[in-house]
Amino acid sequence: MSRFWSDLVHELTPYVPGEQPRVADLVKLNTNESPLGPSPRALEAIRAAATDTLRLYPDPDATALRQALARYHRVQPEQVFVGNGSDEVLAHVFVALLRHQAPLLFPDITYSFYPVYCRLFGVRHETVPLDDELRVRIADYRRPAGAIILANPNAPTGIALTRDAVASLLAAHPDQPVVIDEAYVDFGAETSIPLVASHPNLLVVHTMSKSRALAGLRVGYAVGDAALVQALIRVKDSFNSYPLGRPAQAGAIAAIEDEAFFQASRQTVIESRERLTEGLQRLGFVVLPSSANFVFVRHPHRDGAELALALRERRVLVRHFARPRISAYLRITVGTDAQSDRLLAALADILSRNAVSA
Amino acid sequence: MSRFWSDLVHELTPYVPGEQPRVADLVKLNTNESPLGPSPRALEAIRAAATDTLRLYPDPDATALRQALARYHRVQPEQVFVGNGSDEVLAHVFVALLRHQAPLLFPDITYSFYPVYCRLFGVRHETVPLDDELRVRIADYRRPAGAIILANPNAPTGIALTRDAVASLLAAHPDQPVVIDEAYVDFGAETSIPLVASHPNLLVVHTMSKSRALAGLRVGYAVGDAALVQALIRVKDSFNSYPLGRPAQAGAIAAIEDEAFFQASRQTVIESRERLTEGLQRLGFVVLPSSANFVFVRHPHRDGAELALALRERRVLVRHFARPRISAYLRITVGTDAQSDRLLAALADILSRNAVSA
Repeated sequence: MSRFWSDLVHELTPYVPGEQPRVADLVKLNTNESPLGPSPRALEAIRAAATDTLRLYPDPDATALRQALARYHRVQPEQVFVGNGSDEVLAHVFVALLRHQAPLLFPDITYSFYPVYCRLFGVRHETVPLDDELRVRIADYRRPAGAIILANPNAPTGIALTRDAVASLLAAHPDQPVVIDEAYVDFGAETSIPLVASHPNLLVVHTMSKSRALAGLRVGYAVGDAALVQALIRVKDSFNSYPLGRPAQAGAIAAIEDEAFFQASRQTVIESRERLTEGLQRLGFVVLPSSANFVFVRHPHRDGAELALALRERRVLVRHFARPRISAYLRITVGTDAQSDRLLAALADILSRNAVSA
Repeated sequence: MSRFWSDLVHELTPYVPGEQPRVADLVKLNTNESPLGPSPRALEAIRAAATDTLRLYPDPDATALRQALARYHRVQPEQVFVGNGSDEVLAHVFVALLRHQAPLLFPDITYSFYPVYCRLFGVRHETVPLDDELRVRIADYRRPAGAIILANPNAPTGIALTRDAVASLLAAHPDQPVVIDEAYVDFGAETSIPLVASHPNLLVVHTMSKSRALAGLRVGYAVGDAALVQALIRVKDSFNSYPLGRPAQAGAIAAIEDEAFFQASRQTVIESRERLTEGLQRLGFVVLPSSANFVFVRHPHRDGAELALALRERRVLVRHFARPRISAYLRITVGTDAQSDRLLAALADILSRNAVSA
């Protein structure tokens, strides 16, 4: 606290990201990173960008990257916005498209950065409870709204909506911006990007941190009607002209163009997820149906916080959210099969010991 | 315009950065980039960061970078804040430290992003006119203020305040945050960082885009009392947990540690500036006394916009601001001596032709 702070700063409760440990030899399954590396072509492009040209500012409009993303998603470059990770994209989205007189709607359980943005930018909002199975029920959003944002698949549940469900949400809210945050969509959900052409109120947000394995580079983007993108550009150009450096733009272009690597990589993660799910079920865990690169699980007889702590003692990091309705759960990133095996062995050990001590 | 935009978006007038041309063979003296490349050690560090570890998020706190900057500036890491270019740092500064009931003060002629931030974040502000020689007069700031921000050296004039002048400003405003934006300080002005220890209201902002020649990497930082830095961290963690990717953090650390390269590089720019100044004076230009890597000049008998256009036709880019009081001026980046010679030859040609046609 300080008298030099603006009033707002006193009110902020920042988002807390998953721990980035500085020690090695941990099985790190807490921040939904890819267990596989990025495309070798992306790495090569980043290295090639490390030249004397770094003395020059990057293209503030990221033209080449937006063109590459437009080609990939079969839209126009004017329908693509890029930013310094999808978190920055989302921040601009909250200012540009989600702040209205009527409240923004999002689920009570979803990406916990959403209420943080609301406080930072003064966005009125209401949360809509997930149903008893922790699913988004589209019908529950039929109420006065200034805008809607949904993560699909939702986080931290991993449960996806079908494209048809998103279409019905859009049909029910033609006058409100609807943002679909598809950070995890590539691991088995249906993207809503094909709906952009027919829905001027739809914006879809993607990241290169998960399925493109470039969390360390910081690139995210959004696809939507050109007028929505124009609003984001106005905010971005009032905030930071050059959010993406030259290595980031070059690496992202190469990553998006390496389709073979991308397909093989996400397929590997999906297969490991199914294998991990079975292993957890064998240990008695309830595993929500995941379309993401993580699973959200609970054990009928064990506390989530306690399990997370016991795993940490065994050098396995997972994420636990001390929040209503989900405090029994663990969110576990899909790692390599070897990492899954270490996790499962640690859990088996914990469950057997607890059984003894109980 | 779109009905989906928030009210604020309609009101924004974004900052317009200098042109980043996509054609080669231009003498580019319009965005104050370094004519020399970055430290080879920085380039090597960026290349070394392009590995499989990019699948992992970067350190959200940029601990190693803040430690390196703290060592360099002889402060504590808790007194250092880093961001995605000094523009992002400034954006957070406006939200965290400059938004108060009483107006923020800054010069009528200064970095033109300041009023843009004010509009984006709803910061009340008043401008204080530079004197007739386009100098900041500290005495003019003795008026009710919620906070003060000054660029030192000022942009686009290049004129610096002494550290004593900044100290007297701080003495007159002990209860207001005072931000000194030192983007260009390394080219001959006195940094105010030594005043941080004795002034809890002082924050000094630096960039690695100019004297460190890393405009393409996007790294800026601020040094100030730990409580001021804490406010910035709260805003940053409510906006984007990971503003600096792994290549950016690694490159910035290597750059700040390459003192020999830095000293040689800024000395070269200072010498080229003196040489350029003399050349312009020989052509009849009035050159304001610059402590930056650019000069701000006018010709007694020529219009600024017209000169900028004529230079562009000769493939030389400089910056002209169509703004009151300074429309006669050109802002010319200090390039290599060869670039200066091309500029001077082009200007000599323009001046001789205009003389004929007049």
